[in-house]
Amino acid sequence: MTNETTYDTVVHAGLAGVVASATRISLVDGERGRLVYRGHWAKELAVNYTFEHVAHLLWFGCLPTDDQLLAMRRRMAEWRRLPQHVKTILDVLPPDVDMMSALRTAISAFAGPEFEWPPTPDQAMHLTAVVPTIIAYRFRKLQGLDPVAPREDLSHTANYLYMLRGEEPSSAHVAALDAYLILTAEHGMNASTFAGRVTISTRSDLVSAVASAIGAMKGPLHGGAPAEVDDTLSAIGTKENAEPYLRALLMRGERIMGFGHRVYKTRDPRAAALSEVARRVAGEDPWLDLATHVEDVAVRLLAEFKPGRKLYANVEFYASAVLRAVGLDRTLYTPTFTVARMAGWTAHALEQAEEDRIIRPESLYVGSMPGEMQIPSRTAS
Amino acid sequence: MTNETTYDTVVHAGLAGVVASATRISLVDGERGRLVYRGHWAKELAVNYTFEHVAHLLWFGCLPTDDQLLAMRRRMAEWRRLPQHVKTILDVLPPDVDMMSALRTAISAFAGPEFEWPPTPDQAMHLTAVVPTIIAYRFRKLQGLDPVAPREDLSHTANYLYMLRGEEPSSAHVAALDAYLILTAEHGMNASTFAGRVTISTRSDLVSAVASAIGAMKGPLHGGAPAEVDDTLSAIGTKENAEPYLRALLMRGERIMGFGHRVYKTRDPRAAALSEVARRVAGEDPWLDLATHVEDVAVRLLAEFKPGRKLYANVEFYASAVLRAVGLDRTLYTPTFTVARMAGWTAHALEQAEEDRIIRPESLYVGSMPGEMQIPSRTAS
Repeated sequence: MTNETTYDTVVHAGLAGVVASATRISLVDGERGRLVYRGHWAKELAVNYTFEHVAHLLWFGCLPTDDQLLAMRRRMAEWRRLPQHVKTILDVLPPDVDMMSALRTAISAFAGPEFEWPPTPDQAMHLTAVVPTIIAYRFRKLQGLDPVAPREDLSHTANYLYMLRGEEPSSAHVAALDAYLILTAEHGMNASTFAGRVTISTRSDLVSAVASAIGAMKGPLHGGAPAEVDDTLSAIGTKENAEPYLRALLMRGERIMGFGHRVYKTRDPRAAALSEVARRVAGEDPWLDLATHVEDVAVRLLAEFKPGRKLYANVEFYASAVLRAVGLDRTLYTPTFTVARMAGWTAHALEQAEEDRIIRPESLYVGSMPGEMQIPSRTAS
Repeated sequence: MTNETTYDTVVHAGLAGVVASATRISLVDGERGRLVYRGHWAKELAVNYTFEHVAHLLWFGCLPTDDQLLAMRRRMAEWRRLPQHVKTILDVLPPDVDMMSALRTAISAFAGPEFEWPPTPDQAMHLTAVVPTIIAYRFRKLQGLDPVAPREDLSHTANYLYMLRGEEPSSAHVAALDAYLILTAEHGMNASTFAGRVTISTRSDLVSAVASAIGAMKGPLHGGAPAEVDDTLSAIGTKENAEPYLRALLMRGERIMGFGHRVYKTRDPRAAALSEVARRVAGEDPWLDLATHVEDVAVRLLAEFKPGRKLYANVEFYASAVLRAVGLDRTLYTPTFTVARMAGWTAHALEQAEEDRIIRPESLYVGSMPGEMQIPSRTAS
């Protein structure tokens, strides 16, 4: 028998450029630096609304009325509490299990009759509400501290910081982190969102979809590298040191971490919005004050050293600045990205369930056929 | 601003017909009823080899030598044991958490330094080895029985049945279940395998990939419906009743569950192989004896009632017959499918890691743009 597999079938490696879904959730337009959530500029949402407003928009397709917002906040506040079995699971996971794996395991443990197919906005609210508690519970336990129970009177963002630190956060910190959570809540068909959509496309359930998405986000090719920006800002240390430090870096031909983006060819709208919020509260926080100054200097120097390249601060730059400013440990950067993206993942899972069609691409067999001389395989180890 | 999204971009709904990867792992050729695992007919593997042989083939690209097989069996036998924290997690999950969700949670809890990127064949062996123990442990606990510790001297398949039932299975049952596990170990780019590949494509890890795959397989659009075949065989009950029962069914214009397949246009090679193994041991098991008889009668009657339609027994038909014959509870059908598919999922994760490219398709925004009249959305609820 001859090998009848053909190699001229187009293999869409990484599915680059393949449109897998029509969506009403977001537009990511890197050429023009535009990011739209359900008909609203993400930047305007970040400056004018709270995370809960935006989650409502992503799930229901419209911003909430005051009554809707109040009702939703009340339900989400109740859902912040961890069931005892989830606490036990977080307690028995070995200490060297990373936070994203602990989070995936804890979310997976929410399975049960109330989370069966089809997914609902209530299920989305429930899982979104509980993620900060899971993170804060495990974080404090691993630090040898008592977990702090969630407070129902605080906003989603304020309560997250409160549970991590055990004290009420400043309004500047809540504003900065809220803007970060809004701007990273949704970003089209990225790998984690897509993993969630593939999973729920079999009529599985929302818990399964979110567990898949967390697993995908855990990978370093997904999340960006805000920790490296941290190193740069730490090394600069003071506003006076920004220009000499960055100039020396560029003279040596090195990159400035946190500038430039794979998708956005112009200014990343998320960075622009975070910059605006950071500048508004920079007087209350020295780290945000430093970050906004470094951005200004870096943009000026990049225009001088790399004219025409259009290099701007990306979202990782301000993500790092904000997460560090509000006092988060570096191990919490990707988990906090998850706190945000829960809204987008669950919105996509709801949309996929409406579409109700299994996602199942093809593969092209390029191995040998029975009876052929066994050709040494390049991929087999 | 006008709405600049265009609707003439091709949306590959469900990615049907899109080749997402070149693979050396398997060829699924439904037109001709061919299923090849790394250069070998799956049917011949099922008739002549054990599950461990085939897992080795899928992971390493070649059948094992005797020494390799022995070494691999020894390692997998050691890895069957559950760590204490995983037992605790299975104990505290509420009883109404279904087995697939419990399995996903328990596998997720294996996270830790030894399962970090990149995935290895040893990691694949480890997770594959432990899945039967997780299922048997939770199954017996929920039945109010003491869990049965794994035995290192038994094969993967024999030990699975042993742990479920607490007694050594017959060689006929081991042969039948082994053939089932081999024939469902791998099946190209299905939704669960793809969910796993998307997840690990971010340089996440094997635990995350398998957790995603389990979550996708949980959905009823993925797994087929062997339970419905069960109902048919139960209703028939005796060989004498097969023809009158099926004839009456066809006269009423109803389908015979377990015949016909979406992909295979000719005889499903997995059903053909299972039929061969079932016939070999049918004398030792009345249920397999009934199933092979029902297949013969059904194929004859379908040729009479639907000439030219080429309807054959599919894999669900024999899956049901085998799983019932070996004494498995219906709630164990999809989990046992998972026991098999662990080999394929992990082989694909290893291949994806070699490819080392993030899987990230695009989406087409079809919502409104800021400033436009808000068009009532069809998908928003």
